[in-house]
Amino acid sequence: MDFPENKLNLLRSIMKGLGIDFYIIPSSDPHMGEYIPDFWKIIPWLTGFTGSAGTVIITETFAGLWTDSRYFIQAEKQLAGSGFEFVKPGAFQRNDYKDYISGNAKPGEKIGFDGRIFSLAAFRRLEKRMEEKMVSFETNCDLISSIWNDRPSLPFSSAFDHPVVFSGKERSAKISEVRAKMKEQNADYHLITSNDDIMWLLNIRGNDLKYSPLLLSFALVGMDQILLFIDEAKIPLKLSSEFDRLGIAILPYEEASAIITSITEGHSVLFNPQTTSIELYNSISGNSKPIEDLTIPARLKSIKNKTEIGNIAGTMVKDGVALTKFFYWFDSNHGREPMTEDSLTVQLFEFRAQQEHFLGSSFATITAFNENSALPHYTAGEGSGAEIGERGLLLVDSGGHYMGGTTDITRTIPVGIPSAQQKKDFTLILKGHINLALAKFPNGTRGYQLDFIARRAMWGSGMNYAHGTGHGVGYCLNVHEGPQSISPADNKTTIEAGMLTSNEPAIYREGEYGIRIENLILCYEDEETEFGQFLRFDTVSLCYIEKSLIDKSILDEKEVEWLNSYHSEVYDKLSPHLTAEENIWLREKTEPI
Amino acid sequence: MDFPENKLNLLRSIMKGLGIDFYIIPSSDPHMGEYIPDFWKIIPWLTGFTGSAGTVIITETFAGLWTDSRYFIQAEKQLAGSGFEFVKPGAFQRNDYKDYISGNAKPGEKIGFDGRIFSLAAFRRLEKRMEEKMVSFETNCDLISSIWNDRPSLPFSSAFDHPVVFSGKERSAKISEVRAKMKEQNADYHLITSNDDIMWLLNIRGNDLKYSPLLLSFALVGMDQILLFIDEAKIPLKLSSEFDRLGIAILPYEEASAIITSITEGHSVLFNPQTTSIELYNSISGNSKPIEDLTIPARLKSIKNKTEIGNIAGTMVKDGVALTKFFYWFDSNHGREPMTEDSLTVQLFEFRAQQEHFLGSSFATITAFNENSALPHYTAGEGSGAEIGERGLLLVDSGGHYMGGTTDITRTIPVGIPSAQQKKDFTLILKGHINLALAKFPNGTRGYQLDFIARRAMWGSGMNYAHGTGHGVGYCLNVHEGPQSISPADNKTTIEAGMLTSNEPAIYREGEYGIRIENLILCYEDEETEFGQFLRFDTVSLCYIEKSLIDKSILDEKEVEWLNSYHSEVYDKLSPHLTAEENIWLREKTEPI
Repeated sequence: MDFPENKLNLLRSIMKGLGIDFYIIPSSDPHMGEYIPDFWKIIPWLTGFTGSAGTVIITETFAGLWTDSRYFIQAEKQLAGSGFEFVKPGAFQRNDYKDYISGNAKPGEKIGFDGRIFSLAAFRRLEKRMEEKMVSFETNCDLISSIWNDRPSLPFSSAFDHPVVFSGKERSAKISEVRAKMKEQNADYHLITSNDDIMWLLNIRGNDLKYSPLLLSFALVGMDQILLFIDEAKIPLKLSSEFDRLGIAILPYEEASAIITSITEGHSVLFNPQTTSIELYNSISGNSKPIEDLTIPARLKSIKNKTEIGNIAGTMVKDGVALTKFFYWFDSNHGREPMTEDSLTVQLFEFRAQQEHFLGSSFATITAFNENSALPHYTAGEGSGAEIGERGLLLVDSGGHYMGGTTDITRTIPVGIPSAQQKKDFTLILKGHINLALAKFPNGTRGYQLDFIARRAMWGSGMNYAHGTGHGVGYCLNVHEGPQSISPADNKTTIEAGMLTSNEPAIYREGEYGIRIENLILCYEDEETEFGQFLRFDTVSLCYIEKSLIDKSILDEKEVEWLNSYHSEVYDKLSPHLTAEENIWLREKTEPI
Repeated sequence: MDFPENKLNLLRSIMKGLGIDFYIIPSSDPHMGEYIPDFWKIIPWLTGFTGSAGTVIITETFAGLWTDSRYFIQAEKQLAGSGFEFVKPGAFQRNDYKDYISGNAKPGEKIGFDGRIFSLAAFRRLEKRMEEKMVSFETNCDLISSIWNDRPSLPFSSAFDHPVVFSGKERSAKISEVRAKMKEQNADYHLITSNDDIMWLLNIRGNDLKYSPLLLSFALVGMDQILLFIDEAKIPLKLSSEFDRLGIAILPYEEASAIITSITEGHSVLFNPQTTSIELYNSISGNSKPIEDLTIPARLKSIKNKTEIGNIAGTMVKDGVALTKFFYWFDSNHGREPMTEDSLTVQLFEFRAQQEHFLGSSFATITAFNENSALPHYTAGEGSGAEIGERGLLLVDSGGHYMGGTTDITRTIPVGIPSAQQKKDFTLILKGHINLALAKFPNGTRGYQLDFIARRAMWGSGMNYAHGTGHGVGYCLNVHEGPQSISPADNKTTIEAGMLTSNEPAIYREGEYGIRIENLILCYEDEETEFGQFLRFDTVSLCYIEKSLIDKSILDEKEVEWLNSYHSEVYDKLSPHLTAEENIWLREKTEPI
């Protein structure tokens, strides 16, 4: 009974009864975040495909899944025999599920989906594609609840305080700041649907999601009151009485839509169409005046305050100590005991878990050997990782959430003696990494202006990587957290002092190996001249970069200087927390080239 | 009677009679190009302000002009006592005339303008700003014709053939190509309002405008016919019979609007809202289906064909010979005879005019000494240019139209001995110039990704310039011709093989001096690797770069190598066309550093 084909037949018969010709299932949840609770993992349950992003379309005669290039191989494998077709776009074609619907829908047909997990922005894109097709939409169409018998429940975890010693600003001060900005935008209410925005605003954290210390919640911020829609039992007494004092009312999570309708009537409401579901959008669209923009917390939290910046420095020491212990352990034990990609992941987690204020991994660790490292988003299945052989490249991309910040770092190390090509590739990537780390630029510069400098050396040798160079990083929230990025995409956000971003140029040689060097870089104010205020980056991640992979002849003087000075900082900051053996080892790893 | 104040009073009384509360006068003509005929120079006639860009607003009690930062000083001077206020935006405020209207208009008021010279895109921006103001628009409101007694007539010049030896493609082939693209976009008709697009399509040129070899015209391209709206007398018999054979019908320029209405009824029409006037837009908007996009010729003509590329190389030799003769003449005669900025401009023009196939200057030459060179768009008035003194920097930015291409080149040379700061500034700009010239990048790269490389050295020293690094350049059409650019602005156009763009980093030290080094760079296909097709630039402009302004210690080995190899190319290509004395002089100027 629980095979995908049976579920599919069941779904089709329900669709028939309701007159739905196309049923769309997105991979999102009502908060449109990167990580979603098991409750909303409809696609894995229905199709067997476990990738984090995808869209399923079901019609009477067709059932298919679209996903992005990260998951092509995985989707093909997991969907085999499921009754769901994997629809792989051709090279350079960026076609998606909308093309299928727009190519196959006939006038009068009905397209249905669950408006709770469909963003307003995504719906508008779909609507635009279907403009002249004379179809109708059923946006309130949950066909899953009634047939998913053993559906996991929504997660339950308790909120905990993220005190000012970590957050750097009282929740009352943040609330005032948000209200001041709301006034500037003439917004009577601010609807916030991203869990991380709400955690930041209220200085709380939780454990509802695997890789983000968040609680599922919505908030409606008014000028005198905040309505917080969350399972009441998640808020401990101490916090709820503090909330009470601040005019924060706790209301049932499920009633958000109905209450928002009654409150916002006739008022102006600010919200972000990218992260607001159709259902919540419909709840405010009646008589009120919509104001569409990035949320105010999204902008404010991207600029880290002084306390946060101080804590990030301390957190990087902890994270660097864990990584150093891990690489020392690997170096000492490889060849003596069997190691696989997933056993290394577990080992690294244990070193991080020993650090004070560690909360958990900030994403699924990528430990990838040789050809596996050529897949940018590879994750070894539990107990199924490849063995670490005698020769090759090992790429480790990992990070943690700490009370005092979030980390994300990638190192690539050689096992045995690296080839000349591996050294050349590594050094060109390092060159790009260093040149971005050294960049100086005026206020007003956008991330897309800086992306080239990390690619220049590689492009000069006819090499490239198909992802951005840097993503924004949250503070004990999400490891991928904008609005800024350093990438070719036309993101208009300027890079500002206080922003934390990754710096991760890379190369992927299919079937052979991948190399990525990633540190986090914090933007700060440098000199002010007659031409304006200039900015620079401080590289805050702390871990040695493997010298045996460097071809020094490819680096210029300034680049060598950066590496040696970075290594001296790594040693100075980490060595007080290491054992004598680890210290000797790290001193050698960080000696000047 | 002809003082601005009198015209203003007259205008106000007409406005009152028609119930117009705000009258807007833009600085454009019906083709929305950079250079406009005297007939449309309403603002200079009305206010005395002669800058090329501006907007005038007139109400019963207010009359003011907005322009951009290039013209702030000039506007202040020229408007003094005119009855028109110069409205200068504050630093960092980008407010414009729309703010004034939106801040002052009352419900029920009427805003008028001449829809023939107001683009659809500009009107939409205005409309959006006035969304909730409950005002009305009178878009068919020419108040000028009836009061401008001695108005110049529209220009008259004869069309001449731009034969295949120059254009590289028969007009019939271009027309077929455009029609094929129209089919791809499902366009029955293509309305083309930019003179340059029409000249390119029909392989003709003319002399209607001062700095562009164009004829005022509109065209409506259908699948079997082309309607060309132009003064019939401008087309010589030989061309008109050829046009006849190709199904190109010549129709009166003034009747474009009425004829377009009757022809496009019920059909789909492709046009560019940026360059289409409200009047022409209204003529097609009835029963037809509008398709808004860049025009097809705009895209096609930005990619130069093989013949054009070959001719550009030859044209650059001619232009380089003229420049070399000019700088040699300057070097030999400065100090012996009095020289002013405008006398130098005349002298340079004479050297260009001696070259075969020269048609005219491609823009108003900027010859600027010392503090004048700190104004990026300075032009000395005729007979009023500053004297060239004994010591300082002389910046010369000039270009020409030739049958085989358009040039645009800037050189900065020292008069007397340059200061250390001037040498440092010059070398940092040269460094940026060279690094863009040397850039290698994959297919799909946008101009905004490349801009940084030209600024990197300057930013590193806390310096910057407030304009883009490069603009597209036409082929015997416009010197500023997109759609591509190399600038921080989010222009999504990718840089493609065959595109010609300027490379002009600069610095402006107010009250002291300006330095700019500008060459044109042509994009071509370099190697193809497993990571895709890579592109590079060929620097096609040919003129020595002043070595006495270079501090060699600031350049790295590759940069020195580029300069020496460029100089060797300049000498080799130009010397066959120079006198013995010029040759000796150029050999010294181009010797390796």
